[in-house]
Amino acid sequence: MRIAELSEKTGVPVPTIKYYLREGLLPAGELSSPNQAHYNERHVERLRLVRALLDIGRLPIATIRTLLAKLDGPDPDLHNVLGNALKSSVVTREAIDPQAEREIDELIERRGWQVGPKAPARGAAAEVVAALRQLGADDLVALIDDYADAVERIATIDLEFVRHRAYPEAMVHGAVIGTILGDTLLAALRRLAQEHQSAKVFARPF
Amino acid sequence: MRIAELSEKTGVPVPTIKYYLREGLLPAGELSSPNQAHYNERHVERLRLVRALLDIGRLPIATIRTLLAKLDGPDPDLHNVLGNALKSSVVTREAIDPQAEREIDELIERRGWQVGPKAPARGAAAEVVAALRQLGADDLVALIDDYADAVERIATIDLEFVRHRAYPEAMVHGAVIGTILGDTLLAALRRLAQEHQSAKVFARPF
Repeated sequence: MRIAELSEKTGVPVPTIKYYLREGLLPAGELSSPNQAHYNERHVERLRLVRALLDIGRLPIATIRTLLAKLDGPDPDLHNVLGNALKSSVVTREAIDPQAEREIDELIERRGWQVGPKAPARGAAAEVVAALRQLGADDLVALIDDYADAVERIATIDLEFVRHRAYPEAMVHGAVIGTILGDTLLAALRRLAQEHQSAKVFARPF
Repeated sequence: MRIAELSEKTGVPVPTIKYYLREGLLPAGELSSPNQAHYNERHVERLRLVRALLDIGRLPIATIRTLLAKLDGPDPDLHNVLGNALKSSVVTREAIDPQAEREIDELIERRGWQVGPKAPARGAAAEVVAALRQLGADDLVALIDDYADAVERIATIDLEFVRHRAYPEAMVHGAVIGTILGDTLLAALRRLAQEHQSAKVFARPF
């Protein structure tokens, strides 16, 4: 199909598709003449994935490019992708609080989690803990093991979902969308469940 | 303190502070002369909150402004803030898939969740479900009740945390940072737990 049809099929405007092509988020079409490229179903699927990671996952373009490169890499190493490739979806900044970092290291040890020493999610978690402490929410940080219980359950569901897929590429694809779109789904479900809990707890005057 | 000291104390550059003042994210200081304003500890706290919502929560400026207005509103209605004010932290777009909306409505009914018919998190959840289906991840959508189980546990912890705070303003403040920063914390913990699960499941060759 031509770019106009690709646009129609996915609802993504042609200039946006051209932008993704320039940014390397979408592989080039097959040239049938010097300025006529043809696209196929793989382009449709990739375009939908890019939109989902952008609109729902709200990932930066550079992060999406890294993730896609891992999806497209030859012979994906499953443990690497599931455990490590998603690293790039965690944004951490330089200066982390050493005390908060220690707290996360201790949490990981307490839970018996096998996690690489350089997992960026360590820094991301430490960053939130440091911010919570600075905002005077030590009472929230005190509950981190309760949250970790619930999160272990979520990670178990995540892995069950991934390992039931039929072949490695589908597993890797599932890990990426399940984690990135899953974060957004979990956040939305959390607000629904909070509203329910809030209605239960605060419905009567106090 | 003067703006320079406010900047030093919080690590936020003076031009950025001035931008937040213009955007209404930070209340004006007290004028001691026509171009000399003084700031106090409340400004320090507010500035830290704004930075956390921006850097860690990655919320848009307009959303933060709405949230802060609710924090500052006189006599916060707890159920409203806990259940409803956080609505503004959910971004939904116009066109939602009616089938996905129905699925979320059915989920809410199945769980017995008391949730307002206009809760924006309904639309946010439906949007993710629609995207997952379009990406061929029906197998992930099939697990939504398992995820809802885990999320109910999280919401219970959230509400326990909030209700143990001493006074309404502190509860509302806790609800906002617990939800927004909590999303980021949960996402980071999820990646750590996934890495652990992935190591357990995929460590052996298959």
